[in-house]
Amino acid sequence: MKTFRKELVFHIPGREAYVNITPQVEQAVSESGIREGLLLANSMHITASVFINDDESGLHSDFATWLETLAPHDPTSRYHHNETGEQNADAHLKRQIMGREVVVAVSQGRLDFGPWEQIFYGEFDGGRRKRVLIKIIGE
Amino acid sequence: MKTFRKELVFHIPGREAYVNITPQVEQAVSESGIREGLLLANSMHITASVFINDDESGLHSDFATWLETLAPHDPTSRYHHNETGEQNADAHLKRQIMGREVVVAVSQGRLDFGPWEQIFYGEFDGGRRKRVLIKIIGE
Amino acid sequence: MKTFRKELVFHIPGREAYVNITPQVEQAVSESGIREGLLLANSMHITASVFINDDESGLHSDFATWLETLAPHDPTSRYHHNETGEQNADAHLKRQIMGREVVVAVSQGRLDFGPWEQIFYGEFDGGRRKRVLIKIIGE
Repeated sequence: MKTFRKELVFHIPGREAYVNITPQVEQAVSESGIREGLLLANSMHITASVFINDDESGLHSDFATWLETLAPHDPTSRYHHNETGEQNADAHLKRQIMGREVVVAVSQGRLDFGPWEQIFYGEFDGGRRKRVLIKIIGE
Repeated sequence: MKTFRKELVFHIPGREAYVNITPQVEQAVSESGIREGLLLANSMHITASVFINDDESGLHSDFATWLETLAPHDPTSRYHHNETGEQNADAHLKRQIMGREVVVAVSQGRLDFGPWEQIFYGEFDGGRRKRVLIKIIGE
Repeated sequence: MKTFRKELVFHIPGREAYVNITPQVEQAVSESGIREGLLLANSMHITASVFINDDESGLHSDFATWLETLAPHDPTSRYHHNETGEQNADAHLKRQIMGREVVVAVSQGRLDFGPWEQIFYGEFDGGRRKRVLIKIIGE
């Protein structure tokens, strides 16, 4: 059995963004030398997500609008978490909708994807250094 | 270490449906010969889900009503994604709530489930051929 | 390849609670002797969650309020599932938002976590005995 570990680092200037990380994850599979196995990609931070969906800018705009409806940032006083001095309670909620992690099959040395699957880093509380963990196990 | 890969194929006639795929997933475990490990089952399409919940028709009706409240299909013009010519932006959102994938323990050659756990394929944009990927690793 | 399996048991007196299970999961990693691999922790019940977020009581209060807005418990008659005699349809919906499971990397014999990641058992229909499954594979 082989295992492989790698971190990706992000520093998103604004509060929210969706970044297609599929090329970096594919690169990690290639570096690992693993041909058959499972890959975990997760946000190491609790106000961000790793998720799989479509690489279409209109959809990303829809995601942002929709998440703001479900878990509004303002007024920040509506959330008890923000009494700690943070302004990011909404980001903790948005990340629950979008998810912390994805698990992807590795087959024949590649991400085993359907036709439109792409992996995204979803930032909901930017302006700080954040990381995504990639862990691959297999042979 | 052993690995096993299989695809399930669906062609749901209407727009939405919940299909219990537990028997097919159990069959895959049996075919794999794997006794101890982890199983990934994921939608290969970004407008569908694989999730675990109860096999109760009233609950499935509740899921449909609830998801329509959180991410309405109509008016389709409310979503930028639909400006691409698609009518399925809501399906991309619904799948984020219900999730892309499940990871299930395989123990003693079986799905290691609690008393009511069942695996479902959740279709939110039917009328086309779609696939679920099953990948199992273990020994 | 090594595999390890363990159950955690809960009996939450009220309807809802968030319990930090990180120490028990770390203990399971230690017991397993696995240094590099993947860990699955999932609710074995379909009205409860295992999720990763912040151990901050204000945030947990925000989660409870928010989930009640998205999937209200009352009136219980609004849900078809409750026609079966259950009163817990809302718990099935809440668990979809919060998720069934987490998959965590194990590196150098420890949970491979970012600075604030903690694992929680989220109960949405307490008052009965329930279990979380931990399965670890690796070497």
